[in-house]
Amino acid sequence: MTLSAAAVNAMLTEHFPGASASCAELGPDFAVASNPITDFSIRPGGFVSGPTQFAMADAALWYLTFVAIDRIEPMALTSELSIRFLRPAQGERIWARARLNTATRRSVVGSVDIWMDDNEDRPTAVAQGTYVLPRT
Amino acid sequence: MTLSAAAVNAMLTEHFPGASASCAELGPDFAVASNPITDFSIRPGGFVSGPTQFAMADAALWYLTFVAIDRIEPMALTSELSIRFLRPAQGERIWARARLNTATRRSVVGSVDIWMDDNEDRPTAVAQGTYVLPRT
Amino acid sequence: MTLSAAAVNAMLTEHFPGASASCAELGPDFAVASNPITDFSIRPGGFVSGPTQFAMADAALWYLTFVAIDRIEPMALTSELSIRFLRPAQGERIWARARLNTATRRSVVGSVDIWMDDNEDRPTAVAQGTYVLPRT
Amino acid sequence: MTLSAAAVNAMLTEHFPGASASCAELGPDFAVASNPITDFSIRPGGFVSGPTQFAMADAALWYLTFVAIDRIEPMALTSELSIRFLRPAQGERIWARARLNTATRRSVVGSVDIWMDDNEDRPTAVAQGTYVLPRT
Repeated sequence: MTLSAAAVNAMLTEHFPGASASCAELGPDFAVASNPITDFSIRPGGFVSGPTQFAMADAALWYLTFVAIDRIEPMALTSELSIRFLRPAQGERIWARARLNTATRRSVVGSVDIWMDDNEDRPTAVAQGTYVLPRT
Repeated sequence: MTLSAAAVNAMLTEHFPGASASCAELGPDFAVASNPITDFSIRPGGFVSGPTQFAMADAALWYLTFVAIDRIEPMALTSELSIRFLRPAQGERIWARARLNTATRRSVVGSVDIWMDDNEDRPTAVAQGTYVLPRT
Repeated sequence: MTLSAAAVNAMLTEHFPGASASCAELGPDFAVASNPITDFSIRPGGFVSGPTQFAMADAALWYLTFVAIDRIEPMALTSELSIRFLRPAQGERIWARARLNTATRRSVVGSVDIWMDDNEDRPTAVAQGTYVLPRT
Repeated sequence: MTLSAAAVNAMLTEHFPGASASCAELGPDFAVASNPITDFSIRPGGFVSGPTQFAMADAALWYLTFVAIDRIEPMALTSELSIRFLRPAQGERIWARARLNTATRRSVVGSVDIWMDDNEDRPTAVAQGTYVLPRT
């Protein structure tokens, strides 16, 4: 694997300045997205909203797609994504780890755990989804 | 049905001032959410992001839950939601219409179409999901 | 549309003699699958099993794919499918109606209602999913 | 954990003689279902059908629910299940391993890998889903 988290973050800064996640770590079959929680993502009671968690899962799968094809492909698009919310999400930073299930010439499938702060063993949501690659 | 879209929007304004959707219409077995597209939701090329479309589907299902139980229940929570992206989303306003599939004492299931501007016949995404009601 | 339900059923009889569904109706943007319930599909209490309902949704989406491309393509394959069970399923015949959400050169997305006997207004399950077409 | 795979299989034999899966293994946070492939599950070309793989995922999640509550609860029901097909499935025996994501008083969520023969590192499908417990 030649791709680095720094390279992904440089692409995000250049082309997606409003992106709601950054790349925290890449491995041969996984990618981790993270972001500090802002007031914008908080619901009354101090809970992180479902769409905020979905956005983090989606970002982790996007980075995972880069890993799977070993290059940054901004035009890889989410085809479908399903998410299940497991428990209330509270904390200062949100994380999502996407693990590779399969990659073909046309698509990448991965499974995602989402959690808050250092509670990776207590996910607040799990997701699975598919990214589609542009035709070459 | 005694519930009105105005009552839902009054609740949103009071308790969820940062909500990314408002209620456009309620019917006996449907609810419509809508919002103007802001720069925040736009990706390079002028496309509305996937998480923005997810947030709209989630909001429409929430309002549908209020319809199904004929009262505003802010503590109804998304249990699971799956979304499929069908075509690029471009435009000035996003809409989501959730239709009721079933309601029990414990949960509400609905199906959602998401579209841009006046193109309801050309959805940019479809979704299905479940809201869980608090135990009484 | 030149495709007929009879043509689909002739293909099934020839190539998929063990198929658990037949094609009941085709329209310009929908397809209906149906099958009598056998003992094999029944769980204690007389309920039709979840996998039986999934199989019917999958068949209806397959026929819908034929409609979308206006030809029988046995090598169209399910890419992903999500199903929600709404109420107990009891009866003598199961039905599934798939409606077209979109079709591209690569894939077909549809939404499905599943019901028993003549209770189309009381679905026992709803589903959404994607079929992928072979590369041409 | 006091529950054993043998106890699950004894329940299946007694109450679900037509069940299409048996319990191969139980652990503190996982359950494995398995079955030999029969002609009934084979499509032309020798491929195991999608509904057969779905049935195996559903069975593994059911056994996982027993693990999560540490008792056999035949009335636990699938609430929703989504599945993604990754590659063609061929072989003599199908397996599904469900891992626990969370368990509450009301529901159990798990993630499932499905594979053929001894190819656990090359899953043919992945799934995620929810079982609902009967109200107590």
